[in-house]
Amino acid sequence: MLPETLRWIGQTDGTLELIDQRLLPGKLVYIRCNQTREVFDAIRDLAVRGAPAIGVTAAYGAVIAARSGQDPLKSLIEGCDYLVTARPTAVNLSWALDRMKRFGQTLAERNPSREKFLQVLLAQAKAIHEEDIAMCRSIGDHGSVLINDGDGVLTHCNAGSLATSFFGTALAVIYAAFQQGKKFAVYADETRPVLQGARLTHWELTQAGVDATLLCDNMAGYAMKQGKITKIITGADRIAANGDTANKIGTYSVAVLAKHHHIPFYVAAPISTFDFSIPDGGHIPIEERNADEVRQFGCALTSLPDAKVWNPAFDVTPAELITGIITDRGIIDRPTTDAIRNFFSHAPKGTLK
Amino acid sequence: MLPETLRWIGQTDGTLELIDQRLLPGKLVYIRCNQTREVFDAIRDLAVRGAPAIGVTAAYGAVIAARSGQDPLKSLIEGCDYLVTARPTAVNLSWALDRMKRFGQTLAERNPSREKFLQVLLAQAKAIHEEDIAMCRSIGDHGSVLINDGDGVLTHCNAGSLATSFFGTALAVIYAAFQQGKKFAVYADETRPVLQGARLTHWELTQAGVDATLLCDNMAGYAMKQGKITKIITGADRIAANGDTANKIGTYSVAVLAKHHHIPFYVAAPISTFDFSIPDGGHIPIEERNADEVRQFGCALTSLPDAKVWNPAFDVTPAELITGIITDRGIIDRPTTDAIRNFFSHAPKGTLK
Repeated sequence: MLPETLRWIGQTDGTLELIDQRLLPGKLVYIRCNQTREVFDAIRDLAVRGAPAIGVTAAYGAVIAARSGQDPLKSLIEGCDYLVTARPTAVNLSWALDRMKRFGQTLAERNPSREKFLQVLLAQAKAIHEEDIAMCRSIGDHGSVLINDGDGVLTHCNAGSLATSFFGTALAVIYAAFQQGKKFAVYADETRPVLQGARLTHWELTQAGVDATLLCDNMAGYAMKQGKITKIITGADRIAANGDTANKIGTYSVAVLAKHHHIPFYVAAPISTFDFSIPDGGHIPIEERNADEVRQFGCALTSLPDAKVWNPAFDVTPAELITGIITDRGIIDRPTTDAIRNFFSHAPKGTLK
Repeated sequence: MLPETLRWIGQTDGTLELIDQRLLPGKLVYIRCNQTREVFDAIRDLAVRGAPAIGVTAAYGAVIAARSGQDPLKSLIEGCDYLVTARPTAVNLSWALDRMKRFGQTLAERNPSREKFLQVLLAQAKAIHEEDIAMCRSIGDHGSVLINDGDGVLTHCNAGSLATSFFGTALAVIYAAFQQGKKFAVYADETRPVLQGARLTHWELTQAGVDATLLCDNMAGYAMKQGKITKIITGADRIAANGDTANKIGTYSVAVLAKHHHIPFYVAAPISTFDFSIPDGGHIPIEERNADEVRQFGCALTSLPDAKVWNPAFDVTPAELITGIITDRGIIDRPTTDAIRNFFSHAPKGTLK
């Protein structure tokens, strides 16, 4: 059964529990957070990762911060300003904390009792949590029509339940199709260098009972040639106005291989992933990460300790390689600047950030 | 400086020394073999790997076997029959041992003294060793014309000096161009799951002073898109009559990515790699290896210990994706059944096995 990535136990004096993802797949252990510092550490030290999951964690963290002092608004604001520094570049972190702070400020204007303030603040954190789950379910519902009996679905990195508060984005499509009783196989790229596919995606698919096969990144092309792969679904870190998509390194190669083999390549992401300030992928900055990620694996060195390394964390897949973008509002077929603009002007209004 | 993969020290009572490749890149240690059993263990336990290097190791092992008893021919034959079982499927192993056995049988007909027999047998092992080096140098000479100043050359797995007795096949091209003073960069795919690229290729290129950058397999496509890669050279395990080429898993993906980016993709291999009994790649059997190679790395488990895994050791790159095959007799441009047949009917005669 798919475990909850995070959960709130109890009332305003309750506890935030979250899976310590650093221990996966070896151990399934929940960290219990009752202090702001514990939430901060969980975010900073990557016990929880994935933009949506970090946002929901931070929202509950704001409640924990607010209850820590006599003046809950003052404690809330101080706590949010502290928590936002846990991972400075995580967009959902600052988004959720801003929302909680603004909500608290508006709430305080009504002069509620301390306990009432905390109750309504907790309800707001739960609303963020439920919105996240609803977003995932909506992506799953829209995307599951694409999955047929007999499919072999390849995914890359972890756009799964563990990256959100539940169900995931790319994997939401798989879970929804699985719950509908469809019979298909999933292939998970291990996703070097950090191995999110091996450690997280294959693990959570297996927990959920999905038929999942792990393979090394360099086997994906040959799996396509052998006819094992009929659909590809990945997540997205950022989508430009023209549909160019930044995602975990290796996604671009998978998309090129998909085109060569005439296999549909889908991106699944909430509409909040679109960044209309960026016209195309050429303007998306690509973070280059610590060379040691490539030089070693866990406790084992794979190369010389000073080996010259190239380690881009993400790559950009041009829109023309993307068959469709599965969002929580529906599917954008053959994304282009016009198709995306058209989609957003006609899609039902919702929680667009 | 590029270290010798293996070397014979002394006369007929001498010692075979070979790099223990299992300890690379952490330690450069030579194993000293004076007994047939030690040679057997070195081959079986993968201290030495790579078809040409195994062949030369076995040839010296035959000398060590021959000197172990009073009747050198009897000891030679017994020793060869024993050594050939160290890795039953290694073609160069049985080829080299057959050649040494037949050579010993012909030699014995002349009734030489025991010492004379051993001297001539050692000279034959050295001839096999020198033929291997000459083969490598010839591939390097033919291929180096393809490398230009400013190139970025991607390679996959280890078709290097460590896989031969010296200089390598794909890497021979790089070493030859480097010795000619050309200024270019090399990119080495780490080559999961066994990481020959990280452990061996990047290491030996660095020892030789070549500018080598290590990257994960899934970064190669993005490196091509970024313009870092201008040529690709890999080795080959087996080449069918039509040019379809079996090589380490991941080679096929690199070839498809190369085609998409209009980057020349070369295979470098001795002519002994051609198997004319196989019309095309569809007839090349692909070994599927132990799932634990994918499930773990070194001492670290990357997935569940019983994770369902697909682990093909090789893949087949269709000839139409291959720009040219660099052999020890010259380059076959745009390989097809006709082009290969034509090449072999016109190439100068040599050590075709």
